[in-house]
Amino acid sequence: MPTHARIENALRAALEDATGSGCPPRLQAAVQHAVFPGGARIRPQLTLAVARACGDDAPALTDAAAAAVELLHCASLVHDDLPCFDDAPIRRGQPSVHSAFGERLAVLTGDALIVAAFGVLARAGAHHPARLAPLLSTVAAGVGMPGGIVAGQAWECEPRVPLREYQRLKTGALFTAATRAGAIAAGGDPEAWAALGDCLGEAYQVADDIRDVAAQPEWLGKPIGQDLALGRPSVALEKGMDAALALFEALVKQAADAVPECRGAPLLRALVRAEAERLVPPSLRTGTPQRAVA
Amino acid sequence: MPTHARIENALRAALEDATGSGCPPRLQAAVQHAVFPGGARIRPQLTLAVARACGDDAPALTDAAAAAVELLHCASLVHDDLPCFDDAPIRRGQPSVHSAFGERLAVLTGDALIVAAFGVLARAGAHHPARLAPLLSTVAAGVGMPGGIVAGQAWECEPRVPLREYQRLKTGALFTAATRAGAIAAGGDPEAWAALGDCLGEAYQVADDIRDVAAQPEWLGKPIGQDLALGRPSVALEKGMDAALALFEALVKQAADAVPECRGAPLLRALVRAEAERLVPPSLRTGTPQRAVA
Repeated sequence: MPTHARIENALRAALEDATGSGCPPRLQAAVQHAVFPGGARIRPQLTLAVARACGDDAPALTDAAAAAVELLHCASLVHDDLPCFDDAPIRRGQPSVHSAFGERLAVLTGDALIVAAFGVLARAGAHHPARLAPLLSTVAAGVGMPGGIVAGQAWECEPRVPLREYQRLKTGALFTAATRAGAIAAGGDPEAWAALGDCLGEAYQVADDIRDVAAQPEWLGKPIGQDLALGRPSVALEKGMDAALALFEALVKQAADAVPECRGAPLLRALVRAEAERLVPPSLRTGTPQRAVA
Repeated sequence: MPTHARIENALRAALEDATGSGCPPRLQAAVQHAVFPGGARIRPQLTLAVARACGDDAPALTDAAAAAVELLHCASLVHDDLPCFDDAPIRRGQPSVHSAFGERLAVLTGDALIVAAFGVLARAGAHHPARLAPLLSTVAAGVGMPGGIVAGQAWECEPRVPLREYQRLKTGALFTAATRAGAIAAGGDPEAWAALGDCLGEAYQVADDIRDVAAQPEWLGKPIGQDLALGRPSVALEKGMDAALALFEALVKQAADAVPECRGAPLLRALVRAEAERLVPPSLRTGTPQRAVA
């Protein structure tokens, strides 16, 4: 099955289990709205690619890991968009969850997606009990305290923000969890795959800073200039665009170099390069943003 | 170790693991504020009591289950108190998390506590892999969609609320998870213990409705009259105080009767009766509220 279809199927299955009969209809609709249609689904793509490189001998567990990582990413977007954080009216080119369903359902949707992520791991993990605990710990570490997304977001509430640490937690941590989870789901060694996630996650956050300064809003599907407007830490604002672009290129190269030698290595390096092109297209690097095709 | 000390130790250990070095200081402080000092800790008491009745042969897993259930309860209180829900300034007699730390940290604290609950299960479950998946599924079912706390809360966002279902989800679901989790952690049969949680959870919600109408605010540690003010479903408001008190008594009796015959049964029935006295003291039943000792 093509990667994209496999991810969408895994997400649909995870939400079908979670939102079964009796679920309040507006919560169910808000959860669907938060997850479909998706963005680039880069994190679950990474999970699948790493699992395939490790043999993918438990595909249902791999699917659950990929779905869990993406559900947690969606949860973080829903809560990030809340009025008390970014107050973002638009996400992925459509109204954000709080715009479409109100603030209360947006809080609950994020909560429900976090729980659903662990629920889908529990269901698939019942058939692979030895892999379940490390998988859960890895995913929880990527999203919780002290070093996951929630902690990264909480650095925005501190008087002094350590920029690199903030970047690493707010974005990198879930990328690292995505690669490690792919390895664990397939019985591989998570340590061998952590560096790929680390580098790609940091590259992604730097790209986000670059795009927030240089891209067009219709291309991103969300407002630009938010880092400056909200006083958020940004490498592009703090060190300048040239330094940010150089850092991005260096991190993409590090990510490609971090792929362990294995049968799936060429595919993974190609994924890293394609993602780099998507994140910061050559036109953006020379100062001429263009509208994205997808 | 006395039950109370065991619960507080389990919670402290869970948060020490979760908020290790590098955690943003204000998030760490907000999380501590949300969990300590606690309320009655009735849910983890139930988990421990059921686990003991089932032999408690894996006490570290029992502790993790009790801590997870209480962390999820605390998370639900933090998010319930947010301005978009109850906008409660006071919780357990001290400022609510959003009053003390702001709305952003309150959202993040709830999120972090949910993740920490699953993290603590993962760590302890690594030593009991066969029990981990059912334990996770039970806990996730008590808090998520379609039948847990989050779904119960989401019924408040629907135009028509099925009262009994709302009560069952918003409070009962986590009580049921608490008893089931205690059984699973100790290798017992969760089905035998579900009815106790169901009945006690429903009794607890009915008691909450009664107290919201009849108690004194300094006795509850939070404002009264909130159900009416916020238009929330309430059995005491909908059917009258006499009917609510009769339902409460019936549910407490059902809960005591639902305790399976076993070595720990007398202790559990005593816990049910003591909790009933604490929830709706005789003075409240005769219309003369008094200040609670604890």
